[in-house]
Amino acid sequence: MPTVTTVPVRFDESVRQAVYRVMALRRDVREFVPGEVDDATLGRLLQAAALAPSVGFSQPWAFVVVRDPTVRSRIRASFLQCREGEAARYPAARRDKYLAYKLEGIEESTLNLCVVADLRPRGEAILGTTAQPEAVRASVCCAVQNLWLAARAEGIGMGWVSLFEPEDLRTLLRMPEGSRPVAVLCLGHVTEFYPRPMLEMTEWTRGCGIADLVHTDYWSDAAGRREEGGGDTAD
Amino acid sequence: MPTVTTVPVRFDESVRQAVYRVMALRRDVREFVPGEVDDATLGRLLQAAALAPSVGFSQPWAFVVVRDPTVRSRIRASFLQCREGEAARYPAARRDKYLAYKLEGIEESTLNLCVVADLRPRGEAILGTTAQPEAVRASVCCAVQNLWLAARAEGIGMGWVSLFEPEDLRTLLRMPEGSRPVAVLCLGHVTEFYPRPMLEMTEWTRGCGIADLVHTDYWSDAAGRREEGGGDTAD
Repeated sequence: MPTVTTVPVRFDESVRQAVYRVMALRRDVREFVPGEVDDATLGRLLQAAALAPSVGFSQPWAFVVVRDPTVRSRIRASFLQCREGEAARYPAARRDKYLAYKLEGIEESTLNLCVVADLRPRGEAILGTTAQPEAVRASVCCAVQNLWLAARAEGIGMGWVSLFEPEDLRTLLRMPEGSRPVAVLCLGHVTEFYPRPMLEMTEWTRGCGIADLVHTDYWSDAAGRREEGGGDTAD
Repeated sequence: MPTVTTVPVRFDESVRQAVYRVMALRRDVREFVPGEVDDATLGRLLQAAALAPSVGFSQPWAFVVVRDPTVRSRIRASFLQCREGEAARYPAARRDKYLAYKLEGIEESTLNLCVVADLRPRGEAILGTTAQPEAVRASVCCAVQNLWLAARAEGIGMGWVSLFEPEDLRTLLRMPEGSRPVAVLCLGHVTEFYPRPMLEMTEWTRGCGIADLVHTDYWSDAAGRREEGGGDTAD
């Protein structure tokens, strides 16, 4: 292996602080204000996505940038149908709270970005996927997270919509069989970022400290998952 | 919604550059040198993971920190078995190249971190998962990516091992049914980070530019996936 490199092993404290700060202030955004996302900025966000790790260096991602209002209206129709189905899963009081949430900004955001896992067969097996083929999809999720952090660093708001029927979206966006839409990202300008996650601020669920979720050598019941928030939700 | 906040919308250029730099220099590490990862550093990495987005604010992650050499030896045994099965999928010439790679540092790293998706039923449905239940697992992958970037910023090497049998690992680590190990991360000190991904440097696969993978409004065959690298691999 080549060993000559000018890549630093350590960064200085300001770099570490910058990374932690952007992670801490990243939010799932659903409220946008008008404004263009220029090509240079969008290009940087896509480059950040492409810097993600991928199993076997498979780079299994693809991106559909959707600005067309008609297409976005159809994406939103799939969302609304899924939301209706999901609302029915909650008891009445919770359902009202659920339906009062704004969960997406598909049409008001500047653009949608459909992030795709390209699972079509290749010439050979992807290194590292034999025991867990889902590692391919995991790579795409890492790309989304890179893109999200990059957007936050750029001051661009981003929301991840997962309430859509993947097959409907695949058909709508004319994607080939074997490709799979993983996320619809809404990107655009914002006037603010919430200080904490919206579902935590509005007490839909309670957050839990990381300390409760860390085990040593073996899983321990002592490090237990907290109870669900949200009040009386049994049955 | 509360609107009073001191959260900045934009960061200055140094913050943006720091984030992009860490993303660009993050690597999948398989070669480690001895040295402790102190509790404060490990704590910051786990905190970074917990800052990841999660569908419905479900925070579905858990972490098993494995330092015990006996446990790690058993994790490696599962890896070796999977690797043997994977090697058999390649034609002879490619198989030799495959087997010459060092694909993990399970035993030489300072510690292993098994990242777990806690998929056990909760009191109610997780908001946002009705159409795509796999969004829960996607959240865990975002947590891994946050942890990876944090490790890189701290100068700690990290590798993601996905070649293990999930059920074997679940049993080995005494994890409850309904929990699912997603990744075995190897963490420790390094003397260098490769300037480019190892599988790209050694021409196992070719990288592709992001421009080839971006479509506008609809999927277009013009923005096509590149051919697989790796030479004559057909059949």
